[in-house]
Amino acid sequence: MRLLARKTVSQQTYKAQIYVTLRPSVLDPAGTAVASGLQQQGYTGVEAVRIGKYIQLTLTTDTEASAREQVDRMCHQLLANPVIENYSFELQQLATTVGG
Amino acid sequence: MRLLARKTVSQQTYKAQIYVTLRPSVLDPAGTAVASGLQQQGYTGVEAVRIGKYIQLTLTTDTEASAREQVDRMCHQLLANPVIENYSFELQQLATTVGG
Repeated sequence: MRLLARKTVSQQTYKAQIYVTLRPSVLDPAGTAVASGLQQQGYTGVEAVRIGKYIQLTLTTDTEASAREQVDRMCHQLLANPVIENYSFELQQLATTVGG
Repeated sequence: MRLLARKTVSQQTYKAQIYVTLRPSVLDPAGTAVASGLQQQGYTGVEAVRIGKYIQLTLTTDTEASAREQVDRMCHQLLANPVIENYSFELQQLATTVGG
């Protein structure tokens, strides 16, 4: 009888919530238009409207550190433009799948 | 000597963070394109990308209840399209100004 050395790989699924905002020094014409539209509709106390992106995704990987590192890289490469935008994100673990 | 009845009006400034997302039953072609772009760049564990809006604004009003009610109305009337989008928001008190 042979013993097989088997490594158990467990995969975790995470939900990432990513917030992409314009850097404070960058003008936001869409936000200014929305602020002025709201003020014209009677919301006179409204100011400083800034419009960003809210991206949700799920990511399956082996560790939380790896998930965090991947989401950070995705933001930097594709989801945000680091020249004019900032980003932040939250991770939430959804499920664990244990494979052989 | 006359006593003047004076009502002190204090104005609060709130920061609202508003999240506008497509309803789950509505297709998100931009999200699908981003998911496919990420997968092609090697992020094979990525799924279910949904792109929404993240709106920040400040609002000056007298009570938190009024701020909450105003932001809810703004979302319904202008910031979100209730036919295809859901919204949620958080309020955070920034400052109090006491006027005469």
